[in-house]
Amino acid sequence: MKSCGIIVEYNPFHNGHQYHAKMAREMSGADVVIAVMSGNFLQRGEPAIIDKWTRANEALTNGVDLVIELPFAYAVQSADYFAAGGIKLLHALNCEALCFGTDNQSEMDYELFGNFVKNNQIEINQLYQTIKNNGMSYPQQMTEVFRRLYPSSGLDFSSPNHILGLSYAKENANYEKPMKLYPLKREQAGYHDTNIYQDFASATAIRKAVFSDELAQITKVLPEKVVIDLATLPTISWENYWPLLKYKLISSSTSDLQEIYQMKEGIEYRLQEAAKNSDSFQTFMEQAKTKRYTWTRLQRLATYVLNNVKQQEITNSWNHTHLQVLGFTEQGQRFLREEKKQLTLPLITKVSKSLKTQLAVDIRSNQLYQLGHPSILEQNFGRFPIRIR
Amino acid sequence: MKSCGIIVEYNPFHNGHQYHAKMAREMSGADVVIAVMSGNFLQRGEPAIIDKWTRANEALTNGVDLVIELPFAYAVQSADYFAAGGIKLLHALNCEALCFGTDNQSEMDYELFGNFVKNNQIEINQLYQTIKNNGMSYPQQMTEVFRRLYPSSGLDFSSPNHILGLSYAKENANYEKPMKLYPLKREQAGYHDTNIYQDFASATAIRKAVFSDELAQITKVLPEKVVIDLATLPTISWENYWPLLKYKLISSSTSDLQEIYQMKEGIEYRLQEAAKNSDSFQTFMEQAKTKRYTWTRLQRLATYVLNNVKQQEITNSWNHTHLQVLGFTEQGQRFLREEKKQLTLPLITKVSKSLKTQLAVDIRSNQLYQLGHPSILEQNFGRFPIRIR
Repeated sequence: MKSCGIIVEYNPFHNGHQYHAKMAREMSGADVVIAVMSGNFLQRGEPAIIDKWTRANEALTNGVDLVIELPFAYAVQSADYFAAGGIKLLHALNCEALCFGTDNQSEMDYELFGNFVKNNQIEINQLYQTIKNNGMSYPQQMTEVFRRLYPSSGLDFSSPNHILGLSYAKENANYEKPMKLYPLKREQAGYHDTNIYQDFASATAIRKAVFSDELAQITKVLPEKVVIDLATLPTISWENYWPLLKYKLISSSTSDLQEIYQMKEGIEYRLQEAAKNSDSFQTFMEQAKTKRYTWTRLQRLATYVLNNVKQQEITNSWNHTHLQVLGFTEQGQRFLREEKKQLTLPLITKVSKSLKTQLAVDIRSNQLYQLGHPSILEQNFGRFPIRIR
Repeated sequence: MKSCGIIVEYNPFHNGHQYHAKMAREMSGADVVIAVMSGNFLQRGEPAIIDKWTRANEALTNGVDLVIELPFAYAVQSADYFAAGGIKLLHALNCEALCFGTDNQSEMDYELFGNFVKNNQIEINQLYQTIKNNGMSYPQQMTEVFRRLYPSSGLDFSSPNHILGLSYAKENANYEKPMKLYPLKREQAGYHDTNIYQDFASATAIRKAVFSDELAQITKVLPEKVVIDLATLPTISWENYWPLLKYKLISSSTSDLQEIYQMKEGIEYRLQEAAKNSDSFQTFMEQAKTKRYTWTRLQRLATYVLNNVKQQEITNSWNHTHLQVLGFTEQGQRFLREEKKQLTLPLITKVSKSLKTQLAVDIRSNQLYQLGHPSILEQNFGRFPIRIR
């Protein structure tokens, strides 16, 4: 069976995602669309608005055949690591194609770009080293690197989706049998766009509407099941975890905090001070933010703190990556049955206590996600893949 | 000036405490009554129902002249350590007498007992070693030790106040110039007694009434100021910290938990399991309890977990004990002025950032206590001793 992968977060699932799944199937001619989806904590260091099982269900009723969870250690990461995780899982599933959204206006050749990076890694790194302490942000620095080394690419790293596309291309080029890439131009709504258009709106705009109790105004940009889920299930934001994060920051010694993944340069003192003086996550972030730390980087660090994640645990997770199945359609199940013996990573359809050590970060982050609201169901043990007929 | 010490918790302050302060003055003929009082976390591993500054104020308006805080590292401890801390601070203040409550029916001579222990420490320890793994609780074991070595004492370690009295006596006997001891028989209400008598009720009964919204029924056993405080200030119990304790237990790895003071024998696994399955502190405790761990011992462990206290920090606090003044009357202030140069431990009247390391556990536990309710005021920085004229 021919398969096409997509790497997603669905925070929440909307018409643009449905379109993405449909186009992935059409453009690649695949029999099966496989979504590698972040779990309960997301790339930009946020808890998901709706839990992962519900989001998987929404995807499976709207064009996706198989949902595999992207482990925390890859999901809550900057673009390159996030992409490395997604691509790794899709390759382990022997996926032949990858379809991803892009805001890029030019008709850029992602495969060419991937090969350029692969063949010029040393030069890129050298140039990056010479400019990296110039006070610019990482996206600005990478734009500068490519402006000098590969001017014809006209690359701009300032759009999140575009950056992800570039990361997918780079990572994919490293494999012996790279997937065929299908970039898909976004229709109407850009990533940071907060307007609601006719049938499409960005996830950012949708979350904003949900948290302002304006769900009624965005029903047309959402599949029916998602509207029902958002109306009836707890919708989760960072504020749900603020008392816990504040407690964690205040109760930890600075040497405890220094053990947290990515905690460096003395930022732990700043976080502790900001926590003491804040009574919401929003004010905490505003107080903690510096020019050196982007909002997203800081939010990711807050997620590591909340989940008490250590470097060793991230490395351990990378070294024991699994394919955890969140759900499938009949077609997705057929695909899994066919591919079962050729998979290059272990498949999990049920989290058992025997996987406690290998899945430590994932199990813990799911348990902590559950503390965000009393109505969130158990996320780990006793859960089986969702089956959509 | 002649001084008499009392070692107290005031959870909350009631008529029995007022009587204790009055009798301490009368029996000893002291000019000044000094209370060494637990801070925001108490001997039995509980948060105080009212914050320490308010409790100090209540004491100073009801017969106490000077309130000194017993540091967390001594306060949240079994009787012997608690007593060692209280006696240490009183000796550092050159206090000449100690008055303490007792439930003991016999006219026991505490000073004789203290000297007996001092002179027979080796025999007591040897006998304790031979019986300590017999499945009895610690109080039962100590009762057995003294039944065999010192039968005429008729000692019974089953009453909390009596045990404290014995601990004070033992500790006091170790000093070159021991304080004169004034045991005071409790009137009417026993420690565990949950009835409300005419003018006296145990703190346990009072807390029970407060948390059942029955403050009106106990006003006659409380000084007026305490009634007003309990009616207008947040009253705090373990349940206020339950979400934080649950988060702490779930977010910690077992090796994190093994660093917590007094965490041993694999109890960390039991605590984590109980936390996952509980939605209140009460159910957590019921699930975690075993025959081996008394309720109080487990509650103390929960307090160490909540406050993220490590062995090293307790030792550090013991090695840097201070006399932190919570408040005084004019008489108390006069005493401090007179004694200032003879004090054998450093006096603190204001917690400054320079004391951050030495007071780490105390500062942290105060900050965490504050998380129990949004109306609890800052407990550390910028607070000055309460002055009652």
